[in-house]
Amino acid sequence: MKATLEKQIWISGINPVRETLRAENVRAGELVIARSDPRGLELEELARAKSIQVTRSTRERVGALAGHPHHQGVALKMEEFPYSTLEDILLREPADRDPLLLLDSIQDPHNLGAILRSACFLGGRGVIIPRDRSARVSAAVIKTAAGATAYVPVARITNATRALNELKEAGYWIAGLEMEGSTVVYEADLTVPLCLVVGNEQKGIRPLVRSVCDMLVRIPASGPIDSLNAASAATVVLAEVQRQRLNARK
Amino acid sequence: MKATLEKQIWISGINPVRETLRAENVRAGELVIARSDPRGLELEELARAKSIQVTRSTRERVGALAGHPHHQGVALKMEEFPYSTLEDILLREPADRDPLLLLDSIQDPHNLGAILRSACFLGGRGVIIPRDRSARVSAAVIKTAAGATAYVPVARITNATRALNELKEAGYWIAGLEMEGSTVVYEADLTVPLCLVVGNEQKGIRPLVRSVCDMLVRIPASGPIDSLNAASAATVVLAEVQRQRLNARK
Repeated sequence: MKATLEKQIWISGINPVRETLRAENVRAGELVIARSDPRGLELEELARAKSIQVTRSTRERVGALAGHPHHQGVALKMEEFPYSTLEDILLREPADRDPLLLLDSIQDPHNLGAILRSACFLGGRGVIIPRDRSARVSAAVIKTAAGATAYVPVARITNATRALNELKEAGYWIAGLEMEGSTVVYEADLTVPLCLVVGNEQKGIRPLVRSVCDMLVRIPASGPIDSLNAASAATVVLAEVQRQRLNARK
Repeated sequence: MKATLEKQIWISGINPVRETLRAENVRAGELVIARSDPRGLELEELARAKSIQVTRSTRERVGALAGHPHHQGVALKMEEFPYSTLEDILLREPADRDPLLLLDSIQDPHNLGAILRSACFLGGRGVIIPRDRSARVSAAVIKTAAGATAYVPVARITNATRALNELKEAGYWIAGLEMEGSTVVYEADLTVPLCLVVGNEQKGIRPLVRSVCDMLVRIPASGPIDSLNAASAATVVLAEVQRQRLNARK
């Protein structure tokens, strides 16, 4: 029973649920709703028009299904997390498509969730993950991300090198994060259109993917152990991107 | 059986094990060792002199007991994690006692472990936790910290406000991290002798503790969700401390 529940994906939040219900081929099982204002009624109508079961419930139950408190009183059961595509991200306004992260390839669901949460808070506009050899957006990831999966699109790709080359053609700079990177992250210019590449927890960035990077940045080790958790490392660089951009606006 | 194992604390690494064995009242159950060089033999002798059982084994087994790869081939079973004290930290050389963190009060073992790991990498010199209402340094914390507990002292205190006042008398500035803090962390001067205060995951810093802070810093929210994981937030500020200090040395 528990295993089944853990496989269920509940997306939550008014906008993400509305976007999902508006899509052409929705594969949703149930809408659970704990609000009856016009925004809630609109979601109910959208669901009924697509023959999706609507269940009225309490905010507590919606919170339990969503796994986090940022649900706005609505949760929609999905067969799979509604992934985005790289093309979708590149079609957005320039201000809304940078910085991006490409994860090559994060295995630990807790790390993926933590990176999504940090990215959402610090201004990341999208996270790109390979279809294979990567943690998927599971219920556990959505819970750790604490609502961020509703706002930060997660695009799945087949080939990381090809995706990075597409991004380069679209004007992005590719910065690989490595403990042996040649540039200290605080000295790199992170105000350019940027895609940050974060490697696997054990193996780091694969050589072919590394060879596509325009720069390799490192967080300097100030202690006796030269390894930092992958999600913490990504968070440090995202914060430095934020700092430099706030600074540039002054 | 599993519950018992999880309660066992294994400390590892040559220096931490030697320091522990040299202490006057060692309460250690067993030394497991996978090296026979002079440094290993010294540990064996220290253990035998205190009637502690010595078991020769493989690096794989030591790694499994330690829960992380930074064990240097030695693990010592303890009844409890060897906590430090605030006094011990304040007796150290000035360069080796700053920056510090006081956690008021982190509940999630994963967050405590992640903060210890980030602190070790980014140059933190000690972590202070209250004796009550706080996650303890358990086997799970040691595993998440990936070896950092061998290097970053964890001091336990009874009263957070009193500890912060002691630190102020010793010349520290106290910076509380709050999402509503008046100063953006990137604009605060973090090159002064510093103790950073990180609040509880849900409730933040308690009012009495907050009132002792010299400044309240915030990480600006660049996204729609204004909450960041406590360990990620601590990591961002520790990285900013590192950046400012590297910059000041130029």
